[in-house]
Amino acid sequence: MSTTRFLTGITTTGTPHLGNFVGSIRPSVAASLTPNVQSFYFLADYHALIKCEDPVRIQRSTLEIAASWLAAGLNPEKVTFYRQSDIPEIPELTWLLTCVTGKGVLNRAHAYKASVDKNTAAGREQDDGVTAGLFMYPVLMGADILMFKAHKVPVGRDQIQHIEMARDMAASFNHLYGEHFVLPEAAIDDHVATLPGLDGRKMSKSYDNTIPLFSSRAQLQKLIGGILTDSRAPGEPKEAEGSALFQIYQAFATPEETEALRKAYADGIAWGDAKHTLFERVDQVIAPMRAQYEELIHNPARIEQTLLAGAERARTLATPFIRELRSAVGLRSLVQASTAAKPAKAAKAALPAFKQYREADGKFYFKLVAADGRLLLQSTGFDAPKEAGQAIAQLQKDSTALQTLAPRLAPVDGVQAAEVTAALQALAEAAAAA
Amino acid sequence: MSTTRFLTGITTTGTPHLGNFVGSIRPSVAASLTPNVQSFYFLADYHALIKCEDPVRIQRSTLEIAASWLAAGLNPEKVTFYRQSDIPEIPELTWLLTCVTGKGVLNRAHAYKASVDKNTAAGREQDDGVTAGLFMYPVLMGADILMFKAHKVPVGRDQIQHIEMARDMAASFNHLYGEHFVLPEAAIDDHVATLPGLDGRKMSKSYDNTIPLFSSRAQLQKLIGGILTDSRAPGEPKEAEGSALFQIYQAFATPEETEALRKAYADGIAWGDAKHTLFERVDQVIAPMRAQYEELIHNPARIEQTLLAGAERARTLATPFIRELRSAVGLRSLVQASTAAKPAKAAKAALPAFKQYREADGKFYFKLVAADGRLLLQSTGFDAPKEAGQAIAQLQKDSTALQTLAPRLAPVDGVQAAEVTAALQALAEAAAAA
Repeated sequence: MSTTRFLTGITTTGTPHLGNFVGSIRPSVAASLTPNVQSFYFLADYHALIKCEDPVRIQRSTLEIAASWLAAGLNPEKVTFYRQSDIPEIPELTWLLTCVTGKGVLNRAHAYKASVDKNTAAGREQDDGVTAGLFMYPVLMGADILMFKAHKVPVGRDQIQHIEMARDMAASFNHLYGEHFVLPEAAIDDHVATLPGLDGRKMSKSYDNTIPLFSSRAQLQKLIGGILTDSRAPGEPKEAEGSALFQIYQAFATPEETEALRKAYADGIAWGDAKHTLFERVDQVIAPMRAQYEELIHNPARIEQTLLAGAERARTLATPFIRELRSAVGLRSLVQASTAAKPAKAAKAALPAFKQYREADGKFYFKLVAADGRLLLQSTGFDAPKEAGQAIAQLQKDSTALQTLAPRLAPVDGVQAAEVTAALQALAEAAAAA
Repeated sequence: MSTTRFLTGITTTGTPHLGNFVGSIRPSVAASLTPNVQSFYFLADYHALIKCEDPVRIQRSTLEIAASWLAAGLNPEKVTFYRQSDIPEIPELTWLLTCVTGKGVLNRAHAYKASVDKNTAAGREQDDGVTAGLFMYPVLMGADILMFKAHKVPVGRDQIQHIEMARDMAASFNHLYGEHFVLPEAAIDDHVATLPGLDGRKMSKSYDNTIPLFSSRAQLQKLIGGILTDSRAPGEPKEAEGSALFQIYQAFATPEETEALRKAYADGIAWGDAKHTLFERVDQVIAPMRAQYEELIHNPARIEQTLLAGAERARTLATPFIRELRSAVGLRSLVQASTAAKPAKAAKAALPAFKQYREADGKFYFKLVAADGRLLLQSTGFDAPKEAGQAIAQLQKDSTALQTLAPRLAPVDGVQAAEVTAALQALAEAAAAA
């Protein structure tokens, strides 16, 4: 069975709350464990810039969201977990897609149209206060999705249009420049759990009615104590349906526990007791994660490491792919044969080459030799030929491996870094064109 | 006297012609030699994607334009000459600016409005056939200009609006996030020389009436022979004013030579003779450059090297600047103290550090040590302490120097590249925040 790739972004503007946990974090972590699924989760901080002008909040939110997902069990060894702004290929792809996207398509985006409608209703100019960021958001989202050839993007119904736009961008590009992109599909979950907030409306930052996922036990108790209830006295029967307390409980408890509380409602449980029951049940779920969260949030360097490692992993896909796309549109090394389909033999003959060999010390080495025979790069000794081969493969795939492999490369006098980079790029492009 | 920085982009969609030489290349090369001026010239290939869907043409045009400018005497040691798409910081800055640009401002851009007007006049939908690329072009141009803190952007009157938009973007960003950008000014030259083309209209690719700057002597002669003239016979007096032949001659000849031809016109020079005079005069200017051009155009690897070296130079500015801008908007390492203005003492104390020392071999070394004392990076021996110091300075400024300096860095077992990069970024960010 082939692998399906899922991709999910989380905008870094807020602090995760119980609603996010139930509706997004918990099901996502569970989904990431499904067999034959490859999951990409990213902290969408370029998106955050569209609606948030507070740098400290964006940074803090990035930390909190990353810590929350990790504490909730997301395994960064199993999934690709990265910060959008660590992938410079994303804004570059955004520009390539911008050039194949009809402006008229963007005019019809729901989020943009909602702003226009609001302005029109208020008698203002239609684009009043609308930034180009809001207008271009679907293109950035297209780049997020298409960069990693995601098959499925789990979204709510309100986001289907954006996935369709990403499909359109992919199709336009493929039509103009050949088949490069996978056409993504929206994965709609109509059963996304939403939680009521403190005031009974949907829990949302916009309503200022949230219960943070991670606060101290005491704070959690206090917040749950503040959930709106009616004035029915202890002993009076209460309805479970429509009770915010009950709905939150249901999201954390087993079906049996839920039934027991339903009965207690009918039997006239006091609101104070119901709140206590809810608090203990929620805390039971959160307490183990909370310890993990506290440890993470006080160790930003460790999260930073995790995100950088995730970005490195994501870029093993993004870097060669953007090179392929650049070549497709004509952003090419001048050395590259000018028709991608049939590289001229002469160009091939003039390429630099890797050579592997064994020295008297019994170790395995490789070198990169220019077309004219000059030595460009020289490795230190590897214990096994396979290791040397893997290093070559990395360098062939991506010249930024020069940095990763720096400890395994010995100095070559008089060779400039730019020359080595150009040689590797020429090799990679010749391979892409072959 | 302080230095003024000029910036000029050339869109890579065509083949340079005599009109480009007289109107742009020749005056630009002359201007680049002015004292107290720093010049940036770039091949605008991201811009080319807006109007050209032919990858081979973009690649070929990049080669031809680069070869033309170099053959015309542009000195890449003196100016910063680079290809836009070699600067990944440009699309990233484009996104940052997108988020501070009002959509309404872009609605009013001349180029976009011209397309809308054309559609409206033809009874089509106003955005028919308009790409988001055309609409967003002023923001990409803003990024080009603001990235390098250009003071002056030489443009024709039709481009003034774009410079004003770049100023607005800079001002909005500075207002929101502190003073980071220099506000650029348009440098208007109302005396830009334009040449008539083969048919007497302005020489322009759009009219298909151009004479390529570099063709063979025989081709040049043939093309000049095809310039439109009237039917006046040899011996009949001819008017210099309004004669395409005469105008082109004037652009290549000295004032004395021009006067001599004016007199020859009055004396009834035959058109064939006038064409021959023009051909020889133009060829006299072009022949020495042509040899250089031919050599360059057949050595794309050399031009590629020149452009990569130019990009490296441009990025010594762009890379630290985008880091500063990212930090300003909140795209920060999680390790960075969360208020840029006042980094906490604790964060400072936890930073990695460079240490310099001298070994028994008499050479000078440095190492990078993590906050917890672990060795992260180890140099090979330098002959002079100054060299070691310069290497440290490079690394402190920009972690990509790891690649450039790879030959001077010895392997450290068990240290991952990402860890070294993170340590250097933490240092750079702490320095930026200080």
